[in-house]
Amino acid sequence: MIVVLKQGTQDEKQSQLIDWFKDMGLGVHISTGAYQTVLGLIGDTTKVDTDLIESLDIVESVKRVTETFKCCNRKFHPDDTIISVGDVKIGGGNFALIAGPCSVENEEQIVYVAKAVKEAGANLLRGGAFKPRTSPYDFQGLKGEGIELLKIARKETGLPIVTEIMSVSDLPLFEDIDVLQVGARNMQNFDLLKELGRTGKPILLKRGLANTLKELLMSAEYIMASGNENVILCERGIRTYSDYLRNTLDLAAVPMLHELSHLPVIVDPSHATGIARMVSPMAMAATACGCDGLIIEVHNDPPHALCDGAQSLRPEEYAELVRKVEAIRGVI
Amino acid sequence: MIVVLKQGTQDEKQSQLIDWFKDMGLGVHISTGAYQTVLGLIGDTTKVDTDLIESLDIVESVKRVTETFKCCNRKFHPDDTIISVGDVKIGGGNFALIAGPCSVENEEQIVYVAKAVKEAGANLLRGGAFKPRTSPYDFQGLKGEGIELLKIARKETGLPIVTEIMSVSDLPLFEDIDVLQVGARNMQNFDLLKELGRTGKPILLKRGLANTLKELLMSAEYIMASGNENVILCERGIRTYSDYLRNTLDLAAVPMLHELSHLPVIVDPSHATGIARMVSPMAMAATACGCDGLIIEVHNDPPHALCDGAQSLRPEEYAELVRKVEAIRGVI
Amino acid sequence: MIVVLKQGTQDEKQSQLIDWFKDMGLGVHISTGAYQTVLGLIGDTTKVDTDLIESLDIVESVKRVTETFKCCNRKFHPDDTIISVGDVKIGGGNFALIAGPCSVENEEQIVYVAKAVKEAGANLLRGGAFKPRTSPYDFQGLKGEGIELLKIARKETGLPIVTEIMSVSDLPLFEDIDVLQVGARNMQNFDLLKELGRTGKPILLKRGLANTLKELLMSAEYIMASGNENVILCERGIRTYSDYLRNTLDLAAVPMLHELSHLPVIVDPSHATGIARMVSPMAMAATACGCDGLIIEVHNDPPHALCDGAQSLRPEEYAELVRKVEAIRGVI
Amino acid sequence: MIVVLKQGTQDEKQSQLIDWFKDMGLGVHISTGAYQTVLGLIGDTTKVDTDLIESLDIVESVKRVTETFKCCNRKFHPDDTIISVGDVKIGGGNFALIAGPCSVENEEQIVYVAKAVKEAGANLLRGGAFKPRTSPYDFQGLKGEGIELLKIARKETGLPIVTEIMSVSDLPLFEDIDVLQVGARNMQNFDLLKELGRTGKPILLKRGLANTLKELLMSAEYIMASGNENVILCERGIRTYSDYLRNTLDLAAVPMLHELSHLPVIVDPSHATGIARMVSPMAMAATACGCDGLIIEVHNDPPHALCDGAQSLRPEEYAELVRKVEAIRGVI
Repeated sequence: MIVVLKQGTQDEKQSQLIDWFKDMGLGVHISTGAYQTVLGLIGDTTKVDTDLIESLDIVESVKRVTETFKCCNRKFHPDDTIISVGDVKIGGGNFALIAGPCSVENEEQIVYVAKAVKEAGANLLRGGAFKPRTSPYDFQGLKGEGIELLKIARKETGLPIVTEIMSVSDLPLFEDIDVLQVGARNMQNFDLLKELGRTGKPILLKRGLANTLKELLMSAEYIMASGNENVILCERGIRTYSDYLRNTLDLAAVPMLHELSHLPVIVDPSHATGIARMVSPMAMAATACGCDGLIIEVHNDPPHALCDGAQSLRPEEYAELVRKVEAIRGVI
Repeated sequence: MIVVLKQGTQDEKQSQLIDWFKDMGLGVHISTGAYQTVLGLIGDTTKVDTDLIESLDIVESVKRVTETFKCCNRKFHPDDTIISVGDVKIGGGNFALIAGPCSVENEEQIVYVAKAVKEAGANLLRGGAFKPRTSPYDFQGLKGEGIELLKIARKETGLPIVTEIMSVSDLPLFEDIDVLQVGARNMQNFDLLKELGRTGKPILLKRGLANTLKELLMSAEYIMASGNENVILCERGIRTYSDYLRNTLDLAAVPMLHELSHLPVIVDPSHATGIARMVSPMAMAATACGCDGLIIEVHNDPPHALCDGAQSLRPEEYAELVRKVEAIRGVI
Repeated sequence: MIVVLKQGTQDEKQSQLIDWFKDMGLGVHISTGAYQTVLGLIGDTTKVDTDLIESLDIVESVKRVTETFKCCNRKFHPDDTIISVGDVKIGGGNFALIAGPCSVENEEQIVYVAKAVKEAGANLLRGGAFKPRTSPYDFQGLKGEGIELLKIARKETGLPIVTEIMSVSDLPLFEDIDVLQVGARNMQNFDLLKELGRTGKPILLKRGLANTLKELLMSAEYIMASGNENVILCERGIRTYSDYLRNTLDLAAVPMLHELSHLPVIVDPSHATGIARMVSPMAMAATACGCDGLIIEVHNDPPHALCDGAQSLRPEEYAELVRKVEAIRGVI
Repeated sequence: MIVVLKQGTQDEKQSQLIDWFKDMGLGVHISTGAYQTVLGLIGDTTKVDTDLIESLDIVESVKRVTETFKCCNRKFHPDDTIISVGDVKIGGGNFALIAGPCSVENEEQIVYVAKAVKEAGANLLRGGAFKPRTSPYDFQGLKGEGIELLKIARKETGLPIVTEIMSVSDLPLFEDIDVLQVGARNMQNFDLLKELGRTGKPILLKRGLANTLKELLMSAEYIMASGNENVILCERGIRTYSDYLRNTLDLAAVPMLHELSHLPVIVDPSHATGIARMVSPMAMAATACGCDGLIIEVHNDPPHALCDGAQSLRPEEYAELVRKVEAIRGVI
């Protein structure tokens, strides 16, 4: 950690600060320039509070040179993590094709879609039972009933289930779920993360709308530090000034997260774009830059259904996309 | 609600859509132009899912003309809400001066600061017992013990207490707390909001780092729809590309929220800026544009304390700020 | 155009507004709801100033239903535009591989790199002669001399030249240049755009750091309305809160621009990421979502050169990338 | 400047880099830690290209500890700059009240408004003759004719004139103008900045929509390095995800710019908010946090004029605002 002191700092204050660092068990390397003095802190600085240091009167700026994330840091774990969900493997060259409807609506629907996505090539089934909605007046999901319907679909198809958990108090309902998803709004719900760390189950952790990659990795760290190493990271679009799509899909996060961490990284082009006809091009782009999987909304397609055009693909569109994704994987 | 159809939409699909709206009990007003057809939906559109409509193949765009928030909407409640916390009133011309340390550290500290801020003019005491931290390795607060220390400080000074709650499971510990704060990271922790709606206690709801004003009001709506009308909104800075301060304080949110809602609006210049010397100018600016209160970090000032310079003001700096704030309030 | 009036608007003010629209030659369709009155404007609304209308006391909001861009609008020109630069074609299935150094440094360098990128598969040569720099103290490019060196490299290789123009007054120097590039900072330098519209030359128009797709298209419109239809759009990353790379590459802009406009769309992964090892994955992603070309920095590689590792690729890395890009193009 | 090398950097490459720095005349201070080696560069690092260094293979990160702006840096010029425009002074406790219409429309209008704002307390007149518009089809201003009308209004009232220049080629028309404004879109039109640096005239430099404070100061540096020290900085709102107003007014920029630079800082609440009823609260907030002036749109108010309600205030509203602004100035 490097601490730059302000021009004209009094010797006494500087000495106090240096002593304080030494009391924390750190070595301090002092480098005096024409305009500034720079302190290099040597040792375990992970417990040093950067914000606190930065706010001191005599400090101009602070810079960490070692990251605070450890469990998920590729430096300390060079090989890709491979996560097993039943027979399905994710990461290290294994690709997750997660598909299913936005919300579980009824048995007929979820079983129909599960069979359709399986046939199209999916190896995991997704479906929302608990739905985080901006408005308290919007549909909040079938909750426990939805969980039961997902299990029926799993029994019919053999596909492991991915579904979102919103609250610690719902955990007992998720005992038999294969992958627990943490939504973007809950990425920094630290109590939830800690509890999930105690389950040992694979966790699909979505990046928050305005969170940095470091913050995403620190949230993974909450889960891993509680004892659960099965974390899958998910880029799903960030919030920017750009207003032509719901979010801005930040695909460079894929190679960057692979550089920083050994955890698998998947992409959600459905929520990132919010428009069905943008899902395929962005899914292909995500594959081309090396992601370890795709989570995509696919909806049933009975005749006359009004919501055909939603951000969800129809099963035949998804099948076509899977073919292209596999072709791109063959190339890279 | 206005739905603009795409150029060249088939009559049959258009009729299906119109019938679907009518089945929802809505009136539909059709206006045919040279390039587009526009549908005006009349009736209770609060339950219509804008995202779903927008994603239909035949739809170009959708625009709500009535807001989905009701309980907190000034249109339906023109007078300012005034929230009572013991003898203190907030809103409708009553100003909240909330001050105290970032974290409760020990009895001596919190009692010392509580007395100091009271003398400086504060009418509520803040202090963190549960601390949301980006890193699992950072100090997470004294938790239950911190709550008890806050109560001691209240007993010594008579100041009502404001402190943050992070999880539904901690609610029993907050039974005797005066104002429950929801932090920016939990603004869309909907399960927490619903539970707080059942408490009837004043809730200080902070705007999330990347949330719109509409989303902030919808989160207030979660609390109010569960039966608790005592919500105080708080602007605390948003995340933008601008990197010279921790966040960008969006002060225009103050007059805008006052226009949209009858709830009181306070401002947190300490977290917004992260630098003590920026707190006073921004607190004065917030007062000048009409906020209903300020929540400010104030720290004890024993000799040789290293963290003096943090984003916290010293008690004498806070007292000086209160004088200026009162002077500005006298002017506007 | 749809104008939503505020609740409780006086009939007299409403009539004044309607008369004003009628004076502009527009038809007005009035639809009265429980809470609002909605006016639908019919006719040529391209000259109506949305900002002005939106700011009227009695107006709640305004929404355009037809776009203001015409020349570049796919609705009025369904086929892809194909731009010819000498024998090279761009758009409509023709792929531009533009490569070269950030700055032209000297004859040896530019000729060396030009030959290297040609051999690697590039069909156009880029190189900066006029350099926009944030600081007046940074190197501003070789200017006129750089232009002459580019022409030498063109003569040696046959590759057409792409280089940036920053000012109308430099136009005479660019008479013999094949493609004139407008940088991100000049995307809304309207006087420059108008002049470039009069040249008839192919223009490579980069998206500004914080500009919307509509604004990009309106800037293309400035060039096209002045008589020059040869515009190539370029996504090069936008500025967001995200800080791990220089910019956030907004790849969904590629399919979206293709939907809105008939102009070719290329991508610059070098400036978007600023890190050489991120260039290849993002170039492949851009190709997979359908872009019409890539502009990439490639630098010479004499032994011991220190700047090898910059955002520039080495020629052999570029050759490897071209192979992968062609493979992906074969798949999609 | 501090350069952090990557873990595992070869000694040979490290030596090459160090020699290269030494060749640039810099001292290099080497500090070797457990995971990284840190180089401290001592000497004149203003010409070192941070981006280049950061992109080297062996470099993890780079941090400047001294700013690259000099002429406008408060460190080298501790006293406030006071800019004289005729008898009016701006900065160092002198407040600029700049007001007038968005566009100059005709003689009657501009003279009427000039007299009205003078009576209301304004000491400078603003009015747009050259108008930067997103669309080529929108009104582009009266240009030269508008300039002449502004001079007439100046003659009638004695108020100095502030108006926007968009292009170097228009400079001759501005010879008799008192303050030349550079708009947000041209903040990094470096050729224009350099030319303005040669005029010696007061320049009102607006912050670009997505520019950092450092970039704003570097643009001021372009003007000052060309010999013109009369630069007034202007905060006018930035572009963020927040969509309820046209821009997000970043008022903390006022105290921050005052800390970094000795130049006067004014605020434009009209363009920042785009809504007349938000102008007064934000103008008062700007005053309360210490700005050196306000530039505000004021429009004539003949009976029945439709555009009353625009982002422009009416003269009587402006007079009322001036009274409040003066009262706040009395307090702070």
